[in-house]
Amino acid sequence: MLRGLTPPFTPRGAASLVAPPPWHYAGWLLNVEFECDRDRAAAFVPRELGAATGRGTVHFADWQATTDGSELIDPILSQYRETIVLLELARPDGPAANFCPLIYVDQDVSMLRGLLQGWPKKFGSTWLTRSLPLDHPAAAPLRAGTRLGASLAVKDRRLVEARLELTGREGAPLGFLARPTYGTVGWADLTAPERPPELRYVRPAVTGAVSTGWSEARAELTFLPDAREELSDLGLIGATRASAGYAGVTITGATPA
Amino acid sequence: MLRGLTPPFTPRGAASLVAPPPWHYAGWLLNVEFECDRDRAAAFVPRELGAATGRGTVHFADWQATTDGSELIDPILSQYRETIVLLELARPDGPAANFCPLIYVDQDVSMLRGLLQGWPKKFGSTWLTRSLPLDHPAAAPLRAGTRLGASLAVKDRRLVEARLELTGREGAPLGFLARPTYGTVGWADLTAPERPPELRYVRPAVTGAVSTGWSEARAELTFLPDAREELSDLGLIGATRASAGYAGVTITGATPA
Amino acid sequence: MLRGLTPPFTPRGAASLVAPPPWHYAGWLLNVEFECDRDRAAAFVPRELGAATGRGTVHFADWQATTDGSELIDPILSQYRETIVLLELARPDGPAANFCPLIYVDQDVSMLRGLLQGWPKKFGSTWLTRSLPLDHPAAAPLRAGTRLGASLAVKDRRLVEARLELTGREGAPLGFLARPTYGTVGWADLTAPERPPELRYVRPAVTGAVSTGWSEARAELTFLPDAREELSDLGLIGATRASAGYAGVTITGATPA
Amino acid sequence: MLRGLTPPFTPRGAASLVAPPPWHYAGWLLNVEFECDRDRAAAFVPRELGAATGRGTVHFADWQATTDGSELIDPILSQYRETIVLLELARPDGPAANFCPLIYVDQDVSMLRGLLQGWPKKFGSTWLTRSLPLDHPAAAPLRAGTRLGASLAVKDRRLVEARLELTGREGAPLGFLARPTYGTVGWADLTAPERPPELRYVRPAVTGAVSTGWSEARAELTFLPDAREELSDLGLIGATRASAGYAGVTITGATPA
Repeated sequence: MLRGLTPPFTPRGAASLVAPPPWHYAGWLLNVEFECDRDRAAAFVPRELGAATGRGTVHFADWQATTDGSELIDPILSQYRETIVLLELARPDGPAANFCPLIYVDQDVSMLRGLLQGWPKKFGSTWLTRSLPLDHPAAAPLRAGTRLGASLAVKDRRLVEARLELTGREGAPLGFLARPTYGTVGWADLTAPERPPELRYVRPAVTGAVSTGWSEARAELTFLPDAREELSDLGLIGATRASAGYAGVTITGATPA
Repeated sequence: MLRGLTPPFTPRGAASLVAPPPWHYAGWLLNVEFECDRDRAAAFVPRELGAATGRGTVHFADWQATTDGSELIDPILSQYRETIVLLELARPDGPAANFCPLIYVDQDVSMLRGLLQGWPKKFGSTWLTRSLPLDHPAAAPLRAGTRLGASLAVKDRRLVEARLELTGREGAPLGFLARPTYGTVGWADLTAPERPPELRYVRPAVTGAVSTGWSEARAELTFLPDAREELSDLGLIGATRASAGYAGVTITGATPA
Repeated sequence: MLRGLTPPFTPRGAASLVAPPPWHYAGWLLNVEFECDRDRAAAFVPRELGAATGRGTVHFADWQATTDGSELIDPILSQYRETIVLLELARPDGPAANFCPLIYVDQDVSMLRGLLQGWPKKFGSTWLTRSLPLDHPAAAPLRAGTRLGASLAVKDRRLVEARLELTGREGAPLGFLARPTYGTVGWADLTAPERPPELRYVRPAVTGAVSTGWSEARAELTFLPDAREELSDLGLIGATRASAGYAGVTITGATPA
Repeated sequence: MLRGLTPPFTPRGAASLVAPPPWHYAGWLLNVEFECDRDRAAAFVPRELGAATGRGTVHFADWQATTDGSELIDPILSQYRETIVLLELARPDGPAANFCPLIYVDQDVSMLRGLLQGWPKKFGSTWLTRSLPLDHPAAAPLRAGTRLGASLAVKDRRLVEARLELTGREGAPLGFLARPTYGTVGWADLTAPERPPELRYVRPAVTGAVSTGWSEARAELTFLPDAREELSDLGLIGATRASAGYAGVTITGATPA
């Protein structure tokens, strides 16, 4: 009998790319809220989920993830970086939410785990400055005046650049830290490749969210044009709020929209 | 309306990780046939597809792939390397076939495209010597006595090593070059994560196969032990036949087993 | 006129791989002290620098480096990981010191900057668990019982693995955090390639060292055999002490031994 | 006694990053000749070597290199890709030559081996289409009408893009395939970091050059602006000639200019 949550399905199930949830994540995050063209944002959002407000958030994240703790003692299994693009939704019958149109990661386990949860992950190269708890010119400590940067490149082209400067004030949770986040699950069937995949909208089932609180920042954000990636089609107007800090979360499954 | 064969589903469908088939592939291949413990091989194969013979093939491949030609003029979109492990099946009511239990690639497009076709791809680092059409000490030309090597590492651990020496004779097509190849498609549903995914067995629908013919080689093959990857559970006995050459193939979809 | 501290030498000097010192570094470190065969260690150490004691330290480091701050707002220019192997020296006429026989990094700027300082850097892939300031299963926080891991691979082969468990007690600075560290500078002259390079022994000129203090750990350390890398020739006996924490340092140049 | 041509200097000399010459190289090359602003080119060239003509060549190369053949059976030690920028020199007392102001590679051995030869290598990500000897949509075979592409990115930013279309005619050897090529060797001394390094101009001592001949191409070439890399300071006017093919060469040392 073949075992496993995901391919490869094998006799012991140890080789399967993704182990079953719960999935525990903890990481360092730079969060940049932005305004963009509302009509253009609307084109990225399934109408049944809500109405695009023209606001969104880019998260740059340096994650550590584990299921049973084993990945933490062999950290190549545990660590990855990603850039998450979210659009804010107004919902007629409920609180505001986010929808994830685009997200880029640098590790296979996280890519497939994301697709299962409705995060439409492909590969990208994310870099983000870390704040170290030291008073030193290379430490970028969490205090007023510290400058931090982040970037995303996809297939050797820069797509996103951000620059932050900490204000010394308390910041806000933004994006997925502030609202439930919906995404899309859909698997094409190659035995009928002309038929578009059936799309389901889900949100991850979250427990055990923790954070250190957030350090407020001023930010500049740039989306660079790219013919394939569609990110610049959002018509970015500019960054509004930004914050930096640590967060942890556990995902136990997904909930239909 | 959101478009695309795969995530991300976007307004223009240009950002989707995988474009619809046909998918054209051409590459340089080192093929090593092996014998292993038949009972252990049987544990990796769905019984309904056939009986493991205790033979298999490892392919090391340096691919170039395209849909409409655009990837060939921006080759970061087109090129990748992979290691393919196949097990041979005897089938009561038809010709012999292969089943793919494990396969490792180094690029996101190919990973998801593989999962759709039943190739259970995760990431690995594949290296293989190339034969260049030159008489030079670094060229490893296609002639008797030339030595070639290949390796696979997964998460910074070597899993497979192969060494080949060309005999100067004509070689055989092996593995997926010789027999139809079945694999497994299965998508976990995170809204019911305790339920194992429904597995379907399919084979890629192949057209337009071409090759340069094959150069015979003697080979040594090693599977290194690894707690997670299960490859060494096959009980490798050793390499039998090997060959090197170029092949091209086009995939138009998949056919149920 | 061509400008620059290092190649490429260019009209503006902006493209030179390494900018002039001072070089500021801050990072997260796992430090593992070890015992090995003293005679074998002696073979790695220039006799004029001192006598190998049979003790040494492996540092796994996740660095952020800058010259003028610009690298911190484009962090792909700033961040890298490395594994540092040091051997302890008894010195007849002075305090104990370290000598660096082997060191592995994952970024070009750091590689050449190291060679200039006597750190004999080549490429390797280093991973190390981070302690995040959160109470969460993926955070590996700095408290008794937390387990951390680290690994080094060179050319897709694992060379070093370490596992640590924090004791909850205060730990010691180890290795380069405790003693001055010597290394070797030597540049072959290809116009006379048969002549061995002249070797000079230097130590980096260090200012502005800071740290968070150190968290004590128990550790297991493994050096895996590799024909080319020579690390396992040290005859590792085992880990003795270990610690984890943050440190910053500034290098202004080098001092002859 | 410590052995080795380059760091690390070790008891057996096996770990040294670069083994002594001869160094054998064979590879697949796309060569694009270009015109640029002559005065700007002159600023990149040491006056004593000759006068910039305002012509140059970009080579995109997919190499395989070996010293004693051992690297060819463990190809992670052997293969790398690079982008070579050359400027043509008129020389008062001799034939035309090239000077190499900038070159980007993706492997540590090649980086240091280059610095020793006067090739001012830093890291970059090079991709180039390959021509496979197959009649297939993904093979880009060597015949009229085939389109090929190449790109260079440095620190996640694209610097160079090229597109070629084969004409079906015989092409010319270009750049380092046509003229001797000079470069710069210079090692900063960190014990006196304020003193600029002494620069020596050398050319590699070449033997055993072979090629398959060259396939002519039409080409478009773009240098993308980048504040650090200086390449776009050359004032590119456009591509003139281009060619594709295989070449091999052996380097035995270097000759002073």
